[in-house]
Amino acid sequence: MSDIVSEWICRIQPIDRDAAEHTRAYLDTLTKPPGSLGELEALAIQLSAITGELMPRVTPTSVLVFAADHGVAEEGVSAFPQAVTAQMVANFASGGAAINVFARQIGADVEIVDVGVASTLTMPGVTHAKVRQGTDNMALENAMQCDEALAAIEVGTAAVERAQQSGAKCLIVGEMGIANTTASSAMLAVLTGTPVAQVVGAGTGIDSAQQAHKVAVIERVIQVRQADPNDPLDVLAKVGGLEIAAMVGTYLAAAAHRLPIVVDGFIATVAALVACRLCPAVRGYLVFGHRSEEPGHATALEALDAQPLLALGMRLGEGSGAALAFPLLQAAAGMLNEMATFADAGVSDKTSQ
Amino acid sequence: MSDIVSEWICRIQPIDRDAAEHTRAYLDTLTKPPGSLGELEALAIQLSAITGELMPRVTPTSVLVFAADHGVAEEGVSAFPQAVTAQMVANFASGGAAINVFARQIGADVEIVDVGVASTLTMPGVTHAKVRQGTDNMALENAMQCDEALAAIEVGTAAVERAQQSGAKCLIVGEMGIANTTASSAMLAVLTGTPVAQVVGAGTGIDSAQQAHKVAVIERVIQVRQADPNDPLDVLAKVGGLEIAAMVGTYLAAAAHRLPIVVDGFIATVAALVACRLCPAVRGYLVFGHRSEEPGHATALEALDAQPLLALGMRLGEGSGAALAFPLLQAAAGMLNEMATFADAGVSDKTSQ
Repeated sequence: MSDIVSEWICRIQPIDRDAAEHTRAYLDTLTKPPGSLGELEALAIQLSAITGELMPRVTPTSVLVFAADHGVAEEGVSAFPQAVTAQMVANFASGGAAINVFARQIGADVEIVDVGVASTLTMPGVTHAKVRQGTDNMALENAMQCDEALAAIEVGTAAVERAQQSGAKCLIVGEMGIANTTASSAMLAVLTGTPVAQVVGAGTGIDSAQQAHKVAVIERVIQVRQADPNDPLDVLAKVGGLEIAAMVGTYLAAAAHRLPIVVDGFIATVAALVACRLCPAVRGYLVFGHRSEEPGHATALEALDAQPLLALGMRLGEGSGAALAFPLLQAAAGMLNEMATFADAGVSDKTSQ
Repeated sequence: MSDIVSEWICRIQPIDRDAAEHTRAYLDTLTKPPGSLGELEALAIQLSAITGELMPRVTPTSVLVFAADHGVAEEGVSAFPQAVTAQMVANFASGGAAINVFARQIGADVEIVDVGVASTLTMPGVTHAKVRQGTDNMALENAMQCDEALAAIEVGTAAVERAQQSGAKCLIVGEMGIANTTASSAMLAVLTGTPVAQVVGAGTGIDSAQQAHKVAVIERVIQVRQADPNDPLDVLAKVGGLEIAAMVGTYLAAAAHRLPIVVDGFIATVAALVACRLCPAVRGYLVFGHRSEEPGHATALEALDAQPLLALGMRLGEGSGAALAFPLLQAAAGMLNEMATFADAGVSDKTSQ
């Protein structure tokens, strides 16, 4: 494995099971019937396990959005033209996209990172960290070289370092890249051995004929690229994407820094699967935000044994589903930090009946 | 029907379908693939339909929590002693309960209303609107008289009037009352004809033997009370509760004022069912916050054809699930108020490919 990935993996510790157990017991002293806050209690326990703190905090929060293009877009797999990637980066930079609205609501900073948009971008409000101008068309050649995938991973780890140094206690990660459901579907099919037709969906909105074409393109890609299912970096380089690689980097670095990180939808979850294949200890640091409509998401979640917090039939990306789930992390942390205990409040416990 | 209820029902207009259609079309001009924000888009459409506004707002928000006791508690149907109702009111008043934590997070005011706690309460921070000191034991006599149920409904409508006059654009309603899952289960069984065993659950945490006892108590109550399933006020008075009646009032008044109101869990949904049986037009004004673990909640939701936003395995009450869902209403309104359109942002639409 590459030096840079190995270095990050060496820094990742298992989550703190002692803190988790302490929080589990503490929850039953709070003024509510034991277990009555359901998954919010499990989330509070996970936040303690991640941070090692009995009173974890998740604010301030940073949203990181990675944008890149995909050479495979020229195969006609997306409902939108490739130019939309750059146009949406401009929309992010001027604050008009869904992720901007949802980030403002939760008081989070947004960093937009160009890790591989096909055109040259010069607008302010964007971190320019382009590794290359989009991937190659994976139907014809490898999406990128392994060293390019590693460079993109480092773009992700560097963004986490910046957020961490600026005080972030929780990360939300999203992406933008026309045709990136094609790359993610290919990666997922290779990594899990699932038939392509089972993981391919409408993406941003193609019809059933276009979907059949997308399946055929991905099946051909998988056949000619011969990525090694047991080598996640090989899969990432041959059939992946630059923004997907950057997201892999964020999960590794968040785990190394013991920062809770909220996983968004299909593409984000495929990136999370790569990170967990590289280092299974990453799994404990991941909070899954929502269940996407994209059919491959169910497969990716199952591969990670993950149950997302929300299921709202969304399929936008950008980190939007993760941002919508974030208030639940705040509530879980708030429950631990602010709720009165039975003893404090003078409320009779169940056992005192 | 009583004058007071009839007066409120006369003020309730159907939701605004023109506003809904305008918002439905506007959503497809925003910079996202059409439909890609899933249930959040449906929620935005509903907020427009409720308020009649194309750019609805849901803040500031008021949380109303109604507390009352139940005579049937003396049948040993709850895991907690009756004194806990008053103790929890004190906990609400001092800001230490789950609903206080979640309300602070969303910037909402909390009004705690004593509509029928069994003991005399004098603490500050509580609206004293006691109709009577708890209901009678419905296993032995009617829970209350019809005029008492109406007085409790008026406590609910008055609380909505206060919130509305103080500028609230959205309401979250919760309850506290030891043994109120027993009353709600009885009401639901009568109103829907569902077998009692199917709607009774663990409440705040009874075991299976206690649950069998609770089923037997409720079956006996239903047999001896002979409430008329076609007369929701008769059901409310004979086998209901004072806080449940107050919640019925909030739904009627919220609909009359075109205010979105977030329905919490099992007890709140049974109250919503009563309001909708009194006036079917109320249904359009209700946003369902979460799906509770209490088994009767599924029956109540089905009776209202409702799909809640969250499903987190919670069973606390207090309005806690509704408060946790509220950020999704904010996000839906934010999407309409703040997102850029394709034209504004210079992003290529799907059709421009």
